[in-house]
Amino acid sequence: MTILLDANEVEHLASMPRLVEAVERGVLEEANSTVVLPARMNLNMRDGGFFRVMPALIHGRGVMGYKVFHGSIETGVRYLIVIYSQESGELLAIMDAHYLTAARTGATTGVATKYMARKDTPHVAVIGSGLEARTNLLGVMAVRTVKRVTVYSPNPQRRKAFARRMAEELGIEIIPMDSPEAAVRDADIVVVGTNTTGRAATIAYQGAWSQAGMHINSIGSTMLRLREIDPDTFGNAGRIVVDSLHQVREESGDVVAAIKENKFPAERVFELKDIVGGKVAGRGEDREITLFKSVGTAIQDVMAGFAVYEEAVRQGRGRDVGELLSVKQFGS
Amino acid sequence: MTILLDANEVEHLASMPRLVEAVERGVLEEANSTVVLPARMNLNMRDGGFFRVMPALIHGRGVMGYKVFHGSIETGVRYLIVIYSQESGELLAIMDAHYLTAARTGATTGVATKYMARKDTPHVAVIGSGLEARTNLLGVMAVRTVKRVTVYSPNPQRRKAFARRMAEELGIEIIPMDSPEAAVRDADIVVVGTNTTGRAATIAYQGAWSQAGMHINSIGSTMLRLREIDPDTFGNAGRIVVDSLHQVREESGDVVAAIKENKFPAERVFELKDIVGGKVAGRGEDREITLFKSVGTAIQDVMAGFAVYEEAVRQGRGRDVGELLSVKQFGS
Repeated sequence: MTILLDANEVEHLASMPRLVEAVERGVLEEANSTVVLPARMNLNMRDGGFFRVMPALIHGRGVMGYKVFHGSIETGVRYLIVIYSQESGELLAIMDAHYLTAARTGATTGVATKYMARKDTPHVAVIGSGLEARTNLLGVMAVRTVKRVTVYSPNPQRRKAFARRMAEELGIEIIPMDSPEAAVRDADIVVVGTNTTGRAATIAYQGAWSQAGMHINSIGSTMLRLREIDPDTFGNAGRIVVDSLHQVREESGDVVAAIKENKFPAERVFELKDIVGGKVAGRGEDREITLFKSVGTAIQDVMAGFAVYEEAVRQGRGRDVGELLSVKQFGS
Repeated sequence: MTILLDANEVEHLASMPRLVEAVERGVLEEANSTVVLPARMNLNMRDGGFFRVMPALIHGRGVMGYKVFHGSIETGVRYLIVIYSQESGELLAIMDAHYLTAARTGATTGVATKYMARKDTPHVAVIGSGLEARTNLLGVMAVRTVKRVTVYSPNPQRRKAFARRMAEELGIEIIPMDSPEAAVRDADIVVVGTNTTGRAATIAYQGAWSQAGMHINSIGSTMLRLREIDPDTFGNAGRIVVDSLHQVREESGDVVAAIKENKFPAERVFELKDIVGGKVAGRGEDREITLFKSVGTAIQDVMAGFAVYEEAVRQGRGRDVGELLSVKQFGS
C-alpha cells in the first residue's frame, strides 16, 4: 500500500518530539556506519533554477528513500520525499516536504541542542520570524525546558506577529526585541534561522555577542551566496558541530567565510554523529560557547519522512493509492 | 495538477512510435548539450539489494525528472518515474516504470536501428522471449518494414509462446527456431535481449555468427556479472555505438569483457548522440556489421515518461491527485 500525504496532512502528523527522536536515531545509525549517504546531486535548470536529489538508505531502520527539491525565483521551491521499505521493497509513501524540510531542520537543531546546550536553559533567543524560526524553536523546546523567548527580525510587524502566534501556541512568554543584540543578551540558547529563501546576504548574528555558556544553532546559510553568522561566531566557539562536514564546506557561505579567516579549525570541529555516537562530548565546561551549524542531510529527510509515514498509518491518514508500483520478479 | 499512472495505464499509453520519437528527441538534445545528465547513483541495500537513482534535465523540452529503481532477489524490482515541468516547476506525473523501462529500451533500439541498419531489412532475429525481447522487436518495427521474424530462447515452450503471441499482435510471420545460430542465419537485424533479470552469466550471441551487413542490438548485460554477447561480437563489428560510453564501461559485463580482449577500440566506438546529432554516420558501406549496445540512460527514461504523461493528458487518463506539492515562494 502506498499513501500520498499533502502539505496539510504532513504538518498535522509531524509532531516535533517524534521528529527529534527519528533524526537522533538516524544520526546514531550514521555514527554506526549503517547508512548509505552519498553526496547530494545539485543540477542546474535552464533558467538559473536548481534541482537537488538526496537519497539515503538507513539499514538499521530498514528504510530508504530520498528528497528531491527544485525551484527558481519565478516558480518557487517544491519539496518531495519518497519512502520505501528495505525489507519488502514496497513504496510506502510519497509526501509534500515543504513543511517537513523546515521541521526536520528544527528536529536536527533539537538533537544538537540536547547534546550541546547546558541542562538549565530557561532563556532562548530567536533571530528570524519565518517558518524555520518557528520549527527550530520547537526543536529546542522538545529537548529543554524554556521559560522565556526573545525574538528579533528586522521587520517590527513580523517579529510582533511571530511573538504573538508562538506565545499562543506554546503558552510561554515571547518578547519581540528592537535589535538582535538585545534579543540575544543573556540568552542560554540562540537560534539563528534566517535567509532560507534566497534573499541578499546579510549577517544576522555576530560572534561578538556570544557569551560564556551559550549554545548557538545556525541553520540558514545553505548556499554559498547566503550568509547569516559572521566568522567570529565560529572563532569564539569552543566547539563547533556540523551535520555534514563535506556539505557545509561545499554549500554554506558562512562556513566558507570562516575557513577563509582561519576560524574553522579542525581540532574544534566535529560532526553531529560524533557527539550522538559518543565519540566526542557535545560540550566541555559550562562556560564553553558551543555552535551547531547545519545545511541538512538526506538522513534527516528520510528518517523524518518515515516517522510521518508511521504516524499516518497509526492515525489512518493520507490518501491510500493501493500498490502503485508493480513488481518485476527476478527470473521472470 | 499531478497525475498518477499505474502499470496498466502506462502500458496502454506507451505506444512505441511515440516513444521512439521521444527518445530520439532526447538524444538530439544530448547531442546539442542542452541536457544535464549526471552519472547515475548506485547504492547498496542491507541484504545485497540495489537502489539506483537516475535524474536528467532536458532543457529544450522544458522537462526534468528521474527514475528510481531498486530491488533484490527476495523482493523483486520496482521502477518509479517522476516528471516535472521546468517552466512552471510543477510535479506533472508519478508513474510505474516497469513496462516503461523495457519499452524505452526498445525505443532506444529503434532509434539506433533507424540510423544504423540498412534500409531494406525484411528479416529480424530475436534472441530472448521475455518483455525486453518483445519491446525491442517493437522498437525495430517502428523504424523498419519487417516481413519475417525468427526467435530463439532456450526454453521451447517460451519461444513458441512468444512467436504465437507476437504473430497475433503484429500480424506477421514469427518462427521459433531450435538454436540461436539457426535463428540469426541471414537475418538483417538481430535483437539480443536476455539476462535482464539477474540470472547466471550466459553468452546468448557469438560474433562468429555475425554476417556482412547485419545490424545487432544488445540490451541485456546491464550489470557487471551479466553477459549476453561475446567479445567477438564487438571485434567483428565495423562500428560500435553505445548509449553512454561512461556507463557501458562501468556497468556492462559484455563491454568489460570486450575491453579486456582489446575488442572495444576507441576509433570504432561512438555514442548514440554522435550519430543522431550527425557527427558520425550510423553505418558505412552496406556490408559493414554494426553493433548497438545499451545499458539505459535517464534521458531515455525522462523523455519516455514525459511522452506517456502528454498522452495521458490528451486521453484524459491517470488518477488526478490535484496539486500534490505546495510551493514555497522566495522571500516568504
